[in-house]
This record gives sequence, C-alpha cells and structure tokens, in this order.
Amino acid sequence: MASTQPARGMRDFLPREVRKRDYVIGIIKQVYESYGFEPLETPAVENIDTLMGKYGEEGNQLIFKILKRGEKLVQSASFSLSERDDSIPLNELADLALRYDLTVPLARVVANNRNELPKFFKRYQIQPVWRADRPARGRFREFYQCDVDAIGSKSMTVEADLLSAISEIFLRLGFKDFVIRLNSRLLLDGIMFVSQIPAEKRVAAITIFDKLDKIGVDGVTKELLDLGITERSVETLLYWTTREHYFALDGKLESHVPSNDAVEANKDKLDLIYRGFKDFSSENQGKRLGTKAIDGLRHIISLTENTAARNHIKIDASLARGLSYYTGTIMEINVPDLAGSLGGGGRYDGLIGMFGKEQIPACGFSLGLERILVVMDERGMFPAEIAESAPADVLVTIRSDETAAESLKLAQELRSSGLRVTLYPEPDKLGKQIKYADSIKVPFVAVLGESEIANATVAIKNMKTGDQQTAPRSEAGSLIA
Amino acid sequence: MASTQPARGMRDFLPREVRKRDYVIGIIKQVYESYGFEPLETPAVENIDTLMGKYGEEGNQLIFKILKRGEKLVQSASFSLSERDDSIPLNELADLALRYDLTVPLARVVANNRNELPKFFKRYQIQPVWRADRPARGRFREFYQCDVDAIGSKSMTVEADLLSAISEIFLRLGFKDFVIRLNSRLLLDGIMFVSQIPAEKRVAAITIFDKLDKIGVDGVTKELLDLGITERSVETLLYWTTREHYFALDGKLESHVPSNDAVEANKDKLDLIYRGFKDFSSENQGKRLGTKAIDGLRHIISLTENTAARNHIKIDASLARGLSYYTGTIMEINVPDLAGSLGGGGRYDGLIGMFGKEQIPACGFSLGLERILVVMDERGMFPAEIAESAPADVLVTIRSDETAAESLKLAQELRSSGLRVTLYPEPDKLGKQIKYADSIKVPFVAVLGESEIANATVAIKNMKTGDQQTAPRSEAGSLIA
Repeated sequence: MASTQPARGMRDFLPREVRKRDYVIGIIKQVYESYGFEPLETPAVENIDTLMGKYGEEGNQLIFKILKRGEKLVQSASFSLSERDDSIPLNELADLALRYDLTVPLARVVANNRNELPKFFKRYQIQPVWRADRPARGRFREFYQCDVDAIGSKSMTVEADLLSAISEIFLRLGFKDFVIRLNSRLLLDGIMFVSQIPAEKRVAAITIFDKLDKIGVDGVTKELLDLGITERSVETLLYWTTREHYFALDGKLESHVPSNDAVEANKDKLDLIYRGFKDFSSENQGKRLGTKAIDGLRHIISLTENTAARNHIKIDASLARGLSYYTGTIMEINVPDLAGSLGGGGRYDGLIGMFGKEQIPACGFSLGLERILVVMDERGMFPAEIAESAPADVLVTIRSDETAAESLKLAQELRSSGLRVTLYPEPDKLGKQIKYADSIKVPFVAVLGESEIANATVAIKNMKTGDQQTAPRSEAGSLIA
Repeated sequence: MASTQPARGMRDFLPREVRKRDYVIGIIKQVYESYGFEPLETPAVENIDTLMGKYGEEGNQLIFKILKRGEKLVQSASFSLSERDDSIPLNELADLALRYDLTVPLARVVANNRNELPKFFKRYQIQPVWRADRPARGRFREFYQCDVDAIGSKSMTVEADLLSAISEIFLRLGFKDFVIRLNSRLLLDGIMFVSQIPAEKRVAAITIFDKLDKIGVDGVTKELLDLGITERSVETLLYWTTREHYFALDGKLESHVPSNDAVEANKDKLDLIYRGFKDFSSENQGKRLGTKAIDGLRHIISLTENTAARNHIKIDASLARGLSYYTGTIMEINVPDLAGSLGGGGRYDGLIGMFGKEQIPACGFSLGLERILVVMDERGMFPAEIAESAPADVLVTIRSDETAAESLKLAQELRSSGLRVTLYPEPDKLGKQIKYADSIKVPFVAVLGESEIANATVAIKNMKTGDQQTAPRSEAGSLIA
C-alpha cells in the first residue's frame, strides 16, 4: 500500500483552500490587469544551465534537479563512475531543473522574444516555484509567486507604478497596516564605500546584512567581523543603516506604522542621509553613488504622492534583499504580525543581458501568495461566501433508477436558470439524501419523488429554515436564492 | 551567455496565448462548478513511489524523476557505484517525481483525507502534468489536463452527469461536431472471453487493441498474432469490436457524425451486440460480463436522453483506452479534424484502494487543454476580444519628469472608472508615445501636456479614427469606450 502523504514540504489543497487562493489570485490579477500588465506563463521545468549561477551558491543547492533519462543517464552515470572525484560529477546526472523563481525565466523569455514583445513589456505571472529548502512553519518546497515586472525603461515611474499597484492589491484585500520598505542598492553601495568595506567583500557583506531582521545587530556584527571586515567599518555601516543613525543626526524617531505624513517623513529621512554623505567629503565615489541613489528615491517618493502607495512607503536604509541580481531600487512589503515579508522586489538592469546581446533595464515585484493567505486566515479577512463556500446552490434528489433520468433533466433546467446544481448520485432513502445535503452545506434541496414527477412539480426544501414548498417545475429556480 | 530557449518539449506562453488558454479554462471551470464539482490542487512533485507502477511499464519510463539532494544523493551514488549491475541502482538516485496525470494524485488525496471529504466527492482539477515523451507536433512534455471526477458511487448517474458536463463545455466553446465514444472494459472483457483470449494476455491485448486508431486493423492483427494469440481469436475479437460485426449482424451502417436519433442508433447497436452474446451460449463468464456491460451502457444512454450529451454519444465497442486502471465504463471525445482525442476517461473502482484500506468507486473524465486549443485556433473559434486583446484600454502619456506625478494621478483616476490603464514609462516625444500606443494596439491615448495640466483637462485620442477630444479630467473616463 503506497503512502498517502504528499511529498515533504508540499501540500494538497482541498476545495475550501483552493477557493481562498483563487479569491486572492483573482484580486491580484484584476489589479495587475488594470495597470496594463499582461499575463505570461513559462514551463515549470527549465534547462539546468538557465537556472544555475543566477541565485548565488545557496540558491544552486536549493534547485530541484531532474535526472537525465534513458541512454543519457547511463552514459552520465558511467562518466560519474570513472571520473568520480566527489560531488562534481553528480551534477552531470541532471539536465533539467524546476523553476526557482519567476524572474530568471522572464529574463530568458524577454531575451528570446525581443522582436515579438513590445519595447516596454509589462507582464504579470502567477505560478508555483520550487525550492529544496528545509520545510518549516510557513516555509514550503512548492509555493506560488505573484510577480509583476516592467521591462525596458530606467525611469522611476516604473517603480512608482509598481508601488501603486502593489498597494492597491493590499488595500483591496482589506489590509490597512502594510508598509513597503524602500531602499536602493546604490545607496547601500555608497554606504559600503563610506564604511571602507573592500570591494571584494561587498556582496558577501550584503548577504549578511540581509539577515538583520532575523539575527539582529549583534548577529550581523559577529558575521561581518568573521568575514574579516574591520570593527570600525562594521560600526560605520550599522551607524548609517540602522535607526541609531537617524537618532544621532537629528534625534528623530521612526515609526513602523505608516502615517498620514509619510511623504514628509520619508523626505526628511532622505535629507538626513544626504547630509550624512556630504560630511564624508573625502570619499568621492561613495558620495556620488549615495547622492544619486537619494535623488532617485526622492523622485519615487514624489511620484507616488497621488497614488494608493502614498502612506504605505517607508524609506529604510537597512533593507538589503538577498538576491544577487538587484542593481538599484529594492522594496519589501511587511505587516506587523508576520516576521518575514509578504513580498519584495527591485530593479535588475543586468539580468536580461545574461541571456541576450542587449542590456535591457527591468524592475519588478514578487508577492508570496502563501504568506498573504496565512495572515488573512489568522485575521479572518475572507468574505463569508469564500470562507464558507458550498459546492452547489441546490442538490437534486433521486427517487429510483426509473426516475433518475428525470432528476438529471431537472438538474439541467435549474442550471439553465444560473444555479450551481449537484445531483445525489444514486437512488437512496430521502432522509439520507437530505442528511448528505446538510453535510455538504448545500442551502437548498430539490426533491423529485413520484408524485412530483406525476404533477410536473418539485418540492424545494430550504435547509436553513427547514421550510418546504412545492412549485411547478418552471418556477423552481426562482424559489432558490 | 545562457541559452534563451525553453527546455525541449516545453513552451513559453506569451500574453495572447495565455488569454486564449484562460478563456477556455474559464468556461471549463464555470461548467464544472455549475455541476457541483469543487476545485482541488495537488503538488507538481510527488514521492516517486506514489507514481511508479500506476501507468504501466511505458509510463514508468516517461515519468520525470528528481535527483536526491545533498548527503542522500552522495550515499545513493556510492551505493550505485558499488552495487552497480546496470540500470536498477540508477533509480535509487531519485526520491521524487513530477506528476504524470491528475488521477493518481486524486486517488492519493482521497485516501489521505477520507474523513474530511464528503461521502460523494466531486472535484475538478486543472493543472499541468509532465511526461518525458518524445516531443512531436502537438505533443509536449508539459501540458495541462482539465480533470473532473466523482468519487464514492457506482451509480451510472455519475457517468451520465460527466457526459452531460463534458458535452456542455464543448457546446459552450462553440463545438457542434464532437462525438463522445462510449464503451465498457467489461464489454471488452466479455469479448475477450468469447474470443478465447487467455486471461494472462488480456491486458497486453487491450494495450495493442488501443492502437486501432493509429495502426489500423492490419497493424493490430499483426501485433496480436505476435503476442501469441491464435488467428481465430484475433478474428473473433475484431469481428466483435469493429464495424464489420454490426454489418454482419444486421447490415446497419454506422455514421461517425452524431445524428438526431443518436439515442435510437445507440440502443440498436447495443441490442445487436447483446444478441451476439446470446449466440455464444457456450461461454458463460463472457456472456455474463458482456450482458452486464450492455445493461450498464443502456442505462447510461437513457439517463443522458435529456441532457446536453444526447446527440453526441456513440457506442463504440472498439474503444479501449490505454491506461491500466480502468475497470468499467470508458469514454473518449473526438472531432473529425483531429487524429487523436480531445480527452477521455472512465471508471476506475480499484485505484483508490491502492492507497487506502477502503475500495472506493470512482469515475472521471480528463480534457487535454492543448488539443482543444489547437482545434479552436485552426477553426478560428476564439471571440475577437480574446484573439485580438490589447494590454489596456488607454495609455497615459508623460510630458516631462515634472509632470510625471500628474500622469500617474490621471492613470489612477481613469482606473477608478473601471478602465485598464497603462502608463508610458518615461518622458518622450509625443509622436513616439502615440506610435508606441499604436504598436501595442491600445484603442485610446490620454495626452497630458502642460496646457492640459494647467486647464485641468486631458486630450483623448481615438487610435482607430484619429479623432482627438479635449475634456475636463472628470469626464475623461466617459470618452473612452
């Protein structure tokens, strides 16, 4: 007897769960469409070379790899046998891999279809991705990403458009307290310069720094020191990026909850950091990067003043984002009652060039469906008709084998008046059929016994009130509402 | 530079394709829901043991297998090294596999959730499956199945319900000339008995017989003889299952195209086969199986008389269906201009028992999305708004960096009147922005220049007629329709 469990870290979704997921996906799609984003779909399986090397070393290991087939596998295995010098030949056993995110496939598609796609390509994509991560509460090996990306422009209106769309989604879902943290990799680069962190250690430093939320200032400090960064550099980096900096500069307190004067607060904060850069007049490249980044962030803040994002953006110089392909703006959306983020994104002007001849700028945002669902479930945010969905509006009974065809006909009549109709599948005692209808929470039962058939009527039972009304067949639909 | 192609046999779907797919999926969902079927989703990845051995030997080979990870892989590889005696150890390298169909995962889910699911569970599932088949025209390695299944009843109303739902889908999609071929594995078994095909060769004989459409009577005859079945048995089998039988018995001609008296034609055909069984009075078990099967098929025909399936069903004793898990009714849907089928299904009363303690009867139908799309494309069956979709209803222009925020605001205003609005992403010459709008086939452009901003107006350009009208901002939405 085979196991009945889904694979480790994977989940089956029973109808009620699917309906909740479809409800959220429906709103996300609707908003993306209203911003002129178009749907794209890519295969779950990619050539292994398409994915390897795009997500850093840890990413490489978390990619699910698909075994070669037939003769190719035998050949590779023989090669692995003879050449075996530990782990390298094992990679030769796989030629395909499961999609790890939706951004790298997008970059591949854009490079592959440059002539068919518009100059500015705005696409959304809502599909599952797979990561061989250690499963944990809220962390799965198969999960949905809801991505939105704008390809082809370096303009900051792209960022503003994305921030507005994302905010609108959360507002429509019923969230009021979400915050989109906003930073720029350029600003971080500038701060790295200013902190005199050597160029070759900056990527590693960003990866460590990205864990600030998880391991705190002490953890980050330790790991940066272990990386060989001097104490003075670590201090400077943390001074600039965490709130102490703003305290130190101006004594201002940040609030996590967005406020009605978020625009002014963000502008003030950018001014503070800008002044900080001016003080470091000795470090020219850091200063140039930092002030350029601040100009960009300022522009984004003013572009979003009249959009849904207005009071939900928070400039946060400590935001790093883990993925290696970001080149400019980075963003992340949070709510107070969830430790991780509900999604994030940023600008990646170099990734598409890895697949094509052309460097094409791009910026996007990815929402994590599962985390949104977790928070909505905990807060009870689903409308009643989604949370308590019944499989049908009415159940039609079957009296006997002889009357079954008539029950099928009645079901069809009721469907043509727009109802969702399910049929009890076999002749059975009426009591059992009613009891079953109750168990699946169908609100009405259409009883078709011999007398009803003889009189061309049907008895409609309201399962909530227990009332039963007999009516001509043609009027049955109108009794169900 | 990495390759930009999708993996072999897999496809990227650009927006226009996705919209067509979503249109068909939307209708399929709507009909399934109107019959009281509920949505289910299962992971793309299953434990390898869940899938192996469920689809026959050929199926086993076509399953995509996922390489073990980390230490487990190294261990298995070492084992493969030392124990290597050809292909067996290579299977040890994989612990997971990609879903091969939606029926086996359903059986697993039902066995795993018996207490949470209703006694009669009606579910639909529309998800991709993967098969490492040799890619060919119309045959892909990733394709969507649209499955509908009813669990828990042996009643033939289940078959009738499914046939009606499937017919309604095709009628709503605009098909008129589809035929659902109907047969029973029991009838085939009866005929096998009558043909004196030995019990141990019946499964193999069915597999060969299933290729009748592809390799014809001559091909099937040759393969059956090669299997060691006597000439006389082959003759009897083919006499019973192909049209010669009906000619011989009654001189009646079958028509492939469904007719208005399909019900009578099907009943006549069943009567003919029934009479044939009566003649073989010497063979008791064959006779019992055959007549029982005919009673069932007769019941299905009369149950569907008043449903959408009425004139689209055709009894066909030559239908076999390849999969090994069918135990009763089998069905397949065809149109004249496609060699293969658009879908098929049947009763599988034994499969769920392979996963649980309980034998639970089940019957289902699976539609192949890709093939439906191929035929609809060739026949030009998509509504114009799907076939020629634009990414938005209107494009908003951007005059300069200074006015960009105002353009974002206008876009938001237009969206709140229900329009899909895209923003030109950067300040550019007006001519270029209009040209771009034309290239993406957006029907209207909202021009927001300095004079328009000063006057709180907007110029709406109709891209089809070339007309341009200036109106107050508040009225702009009503000019776009």
